[in-house]
Amino acid sequence: MLENVNIILASASPRRTELLAQAGMNHKIIVSDCEEHAKAHAPEEYVMELAQIKAEDVFQKYYKEHLEEDFLVIGADTVVAAEGKILGKPKSDADAYEMLSMLQANTHQVYTGVAVCSCVGGEMKRHTFFERSDVEVYPMSEEEINTYISTGDCRDKAGSYGIQGQFAVHIKGIHGDYNNIVGLPIAKLYQELKKEF
Amino acid sequence: MLENVNIILASASPRRTELLAQAGMNHKIIVSDCEEHAKAHAPEEYVMELAQIKAEDVFQKYYKEHLEEDFLVIGADTVVAAEGKILGKPKSDADAYEMLSMLQANTHQVYTGVAVCSCVGGEMKRHTFFERSDVEVYPMSEEEINTYISTGDCRDKAGSYGIQGQFAVHIKGIHGDYNNIVGLPIAKLYQELKKEF
Repeated sequence: MLENVNIILASASPRRTELLAQAGMNHKIIVSDCEEHAKAHAPEEYVMELAQIKAEDVFQKYYKEHLEEDFLVIGADTVVAAEGKILGKPKSDADAYEMLSMLQANTHQVYTGVAVCSCVGGEMKRHTFFERSDVEVYPMSEEEINTYISTGDCRDKAGSYGIQGQFAVHIKGIHGDYNNIVGLPIAKLYQELKKEF
Repeated sequence: MLENVNIILASASPRRTELLAQAGMNHKIIVSDCEEHAKAHAPEEYVMELAQIKAEDVFQKYYKEHLEEDFLVIGADTVVAAEGKILGKPKSDADAYEMLSMLQANTHQVYTGVAVCSCVGGEMKRHTFFERSDVEVYPMSEEEINTYISTGDCRDKAGSYGIQGQFAVHIKGIHGDYNNIVGLPIAKLYQELKKEF
């Protein structure tokens, strides 16, 4: 599968590149510099739209300079959704506190959209999908929320937490793909690529 | 919580020590050298019995030399169960093939038993619990099973797979605590310790 096809990850996320490597998919990283604005409101549409924008941007630039090459570009976007609202990255500690208060003693959703733009054997393809995982969080006291915020781990993370860090002690369980919550549904990506190539 | 209490992990598993450290619990490692034989047959009883044996063994040895100290010992044991059978570590590649054939296109269970033996403020306590997670595996071809076995990742792993390695691409989803599958239900352990101390 995918022999002699160059894989390009259109994301700067160290977690995504780790997951691809873990799955044995050697790849280069080329980050899209286009603005991340999506029109969609539903979380699954939103993440797929942004994943497409990133993958397409990198695809177009790469294609011009590598006309003879077989390659594919993977774009991805992850959001946390609680009570129907998309939670982005926190702008401040107060913002993080508000988000974590919504998540504690509750179940929320994590959506990752993935877009694959490929040019293999002269044939161009576009393929987009999303994966959803549910995450159940234990009740947290004010002190526990503040202690977690003080670690700084909440910064730069959608929904104000990272499942791989110290927040793990507050997660009662998940339903769905764990790696989807980390930032890339590597299993579904592998299964989809297996069907396509 | 647990200030001035020495935490001892009675396990040589690098994954368990990583999870404890990730949760911010500094600890020492003292591995039990007692034989790992349990009488129980049901997986949840089996893992709790072995966790108790390991924790108690290390507790007794440590206690004799640290009479004045506040400390607790954590023992843990993890098994994979499929169709009511406990799957241990594979004895050969053929054994691994048989186990993975049972797991593919199916849902199995992972049980971790945890035993905590403590001596805090002169009071001794014993506390044991287990956590169960369900794991759904995508259908795998013979070639995919053999490719995975050839990576060597299946060796020394209950059920012949590690969820953190290349096998991740074959896992459709889980229901329950991910870290329980890795080898230590760090969230439940934290919640139980919070109640006790």
